[in-house]
Amino acid sequence: MIHTTDRVLVSDLHEHLGRTVSVSGWAHTLRLLSKVQFVVVRDHTGMVQVTHRRGGAGDDIEAALQQLTPESAVRITGRVVENPIVKLHSLEIIPERVEVLNRAATPLPIDEHTSLEHRLDWRFLDVRRRPAAQLMFAVQTTLEQGMREYAYAQGATEMHTPKLMGTASESGAEVFELGYFDRSAYLAQSPQFYKQMAISAGIEKVFEIGPVFRAEPSFTSRHATEFTGVDVELAWIDGVEDVMAFEEQMLAHAITKVAGAHGDAVREQFGVEITVPTTPFPRITMAKAHDILRKGGWDAEGTKEDLAPEGERSISAHIQQATGHEFVYITHYPVGIRPFYHMRPADDPSVTLSFDLLWKGLEITTGAQREHRYDVLLKQAAEKGMSPEPMQDYLNAFRYGCPPHGGLGMGLGRVLMVLLGLESIREATFLFRGPNRLTP
Amino acid sequence: MIHTTDRVLVSDLHEHLGRTVSVSGWAHTLRLLSKVQFVVVRDHTGMVQVTHRRGGAGDDIEAALQQLTPESAVRITGRVVENPIVKLHSLEIIPERVEVLNRAATPLPIDEHTSLEHRLDWRFLDVRRRPAAQLMFAVQTTLEQGMREYAYAQGATEMHTPKLMGTASESGAEVFELGYFDRSAYLAQSPQFYKQMAISAGIEKVFEIGPVFRAEPSFTSRHATEFTGVDVELAWIDGVEDVMAFEEQMLAHAITKVAGAHGDAVREQFGVEITVPTTPFPRITMAKAHDILRKGGWDAEGTKEDLAPEGERSISAHIQQATGHEFVYITHYPVGIRPFYHMRPADDPSVTLSFDLLWKGLEITTGAQREHRYDVLLKQAAEKGMSPEPMQDYLNAFRYGCPPHGGLGMGLGRVLMVLLGLESIREATFLFRGPNRLTP
Repeated sequence: MIHTTDRVLVSDLHEHLGRTVSVSGWAHTLRLLSKVQFVVVRDHTGMVQVTHRRGGAGDDIEAALQQLTPESAVRITGRVVENPIVKLHSLEIIPERVEVLNRAATPLPIDEHTSLEHRLDWRFLDVRRRPAAQLMFAVQTTLEQGMREYAYAQGATEMHTPKLMGTASESGAEVFELGYFDRSAYLAQSPQFYKQMAISAGIEKVFEIGPVFRAEPSFTSRHATEFTGVDVELAWIDGVEDVMAFEEQMLAHAITKVAGAHGDAVREQFGVEITVPTTPFPRITMAKAHDILRKGGWDAEGTKEDLAPEGERSISAHIQQATGHEFVYITHYPVGIRPFYHMRPADDPSVTLSFDLLWKGLEITTGAQREHRYDVLLKQAAEKGMSPEPMQDYLNAFRYGCPPHGGLGMGLGRVLMVLLGLESIREATFLFRGPNRLTP
Repeated sequence: MIHTTDRVLVSDLHEHLGRTVSVSGWAHTLRLLSKVQFVVVRDHTGMVQVTHRRGGAGDDIEAALQQLTPESAVRITGRVVENPIVKLHSLEIIPERVEVLNRAATPLPIDEHTSLEHRLDWRFLDVRRRPAAQLMFAVQTTLEQGMREYAYAQGATEMHTPKLMGTASESGAEVFELGYFDRSAYLAQSPQFYKQMAISAGIEKVFEIGPVFRAEPSFTSRHATEFTGVDVELAWIDGVEDVMAFEEQMLAHAITKVAGAHGDAVREQFGVEITVPTTPFPRITMAKAHDILRKGGWDAEGTKEDLAPEGERSISAHIQQATGHEFVYITHYPVGIRPFYHMRPADDPSVTLSFDLLWKGLEITTGAQREHRYDVLLKQAAEKGMSPEPMQDYLNAFRYGCPPHGGLGMGLGRVLMVLLGLESIREATFLFRGPNRLTP
């Protein structure tokens, strides 16, 4: 009896010529001819041909290969031999043992022509069979690790703030409500309030990657009801500029890592060149952005406060043309379109010390210096028509010496969308959640 | 006018003797005497005395210091001078400018005699004022980073699985239900099903740190309704031993990092010596554990299948006495107390290829090899009285070539509890969530 040897990855097979090894993977293609059985086995590192000449009676290998179906999970133990006519690395495996670990049902429910929505129903097969999707998660891993590396080098602390809240946070709209024993709880729309509490708890730099929940009935290519947020909050800042500087350095560091680890693969799989951004990123005030856009005929009525996706794309294109830079910070958003806790400059209370970061026209981050003075915060909440009672736990954090601070919230899926040139956030998430999608 | 200089951390002040610097922090103690005002300012690196001799009329500094209250956030700009009679590092700051950035209300709502529950109401002050609590989060950061480092070196991919599910997962009990547009959704009790889908999606090694939710009315020192889970799932394993080996290596690596970075501080703040565990950890079957415990008089009726916390403490103590090891894997849990998706050995279908990891008597992990064969999985679900329909999305992941796999789920708070010798998981979490606690 042949014992299973240690697994060798397909990409390492050339180091094992002439030896008997095991490979584990999926039956990628099958050609079961009358005299020879060919199976291409795929693992996460590549593909290899398995070639078996049919024997006589009692040929276990022949029988095992014969029952194989596409995408069945197999372990093949056999000798690695050179064969110059084999297209895959000029080698093949002559099987000595075939174990069908999980035979795939036929036919497969999706193929290369399946629509995105139907592919999402079978996401595990969609991801398994597309090298680009596999790469997406490798890029995600490197990107996050790059951001963490930068944040930790700056002294950041990893926090896990609650997703269950006793009261609906910022507005009450777009919040999921759930039964919580004999009362109600709400899912956090962002770690905003809690990361500010961490600042008041003496954490110098807060870093968190975690889920955020939005009960928004949006069906665009960039919205989800649950997504992964990258949150940073920095204490003792001198101004919002400190937050923007932190973010651009963090992104430049992380993108450098991604380009180094996956640049070639991303070019091959996505046809996208990863450009490591120079710092600082361009900055432009909202007022200036409006001026530029209006000169181009945008918002002829002159009524818009915000940019809207179309304005974001236009101003990004303008900046890229003017400076060659893919990123731009839009700063000083008007008070009317920012939450009550954004700080306002002493010399212009009509705007906030806030920013959005656009990358190739897509908003990937919102940030601000926060108002840390209890009395001012109360006043600003009242101006927005908000009652302090439901927010008392939050507001209390500002009554006992909360330092000046600011931070940002970044959508991880959006960053991946732009980085890899994906059409939809559905492709930048493992299992997308939207108003019409809670499965699989 | 004196401009604010760059912030210097208190721990670095000795490098700035004779120079004017700014320190930012909290008014730790105040002694406002008739001739001299003393303020001890604390930042996250230490404490420094600020000494101001009262001047005459127009003394802004005197007025600013006079209005200070304990825990007010301040920035002090002044000259660093040597003073051998000052207990704190034999230096003090002679202030040239005092900025009260956020004056704390008086009196503070908690002090060193406040009960744990009331401290949790004011968690931000509790954490800010206790160096041990600050250290806890630094340890958490290092611990997680150590685990990630190991997992990534093994080729793991960071995944973010959904917390919103379309159907209640494992049992329906202990699941939070929420309104989701015109239907219901459920909060994931663990990433279990989704990380298995990631395995079926061709992800070799899944790693996730994220929130898990349990609608359990438990009030013990080790239960929470929301906690941070560390989840790992490994494809193409030869058996559950591969999972245990991964975990013990990951923990040993992470604890080595914590001991190196924080060992001295942990000894000082918690009175605990961090012992880096040797690998492999001891392993003992549940049957053997029962034998040992029953010889000691435990469960005289011989009816118990599980260990319960008391049995876990006893068997841990026994193993520690016998081997000197703080950790022990209990393996081969009976089928009756394990979920349907745990694999059973071919030669003994009464047990599962599963384990718990105990550390100093506390269960910190549950893991298993999973049943990856669709037909066997269906059979095991039926045996547990479960209907396949609500789980069809999950079950589908096993119909098209899902490889053998296994994994583990670890409670981060529990690991921190044992590591630092904390009495309750409430102390090992930033903002604890329990049946009676949804705030702050």
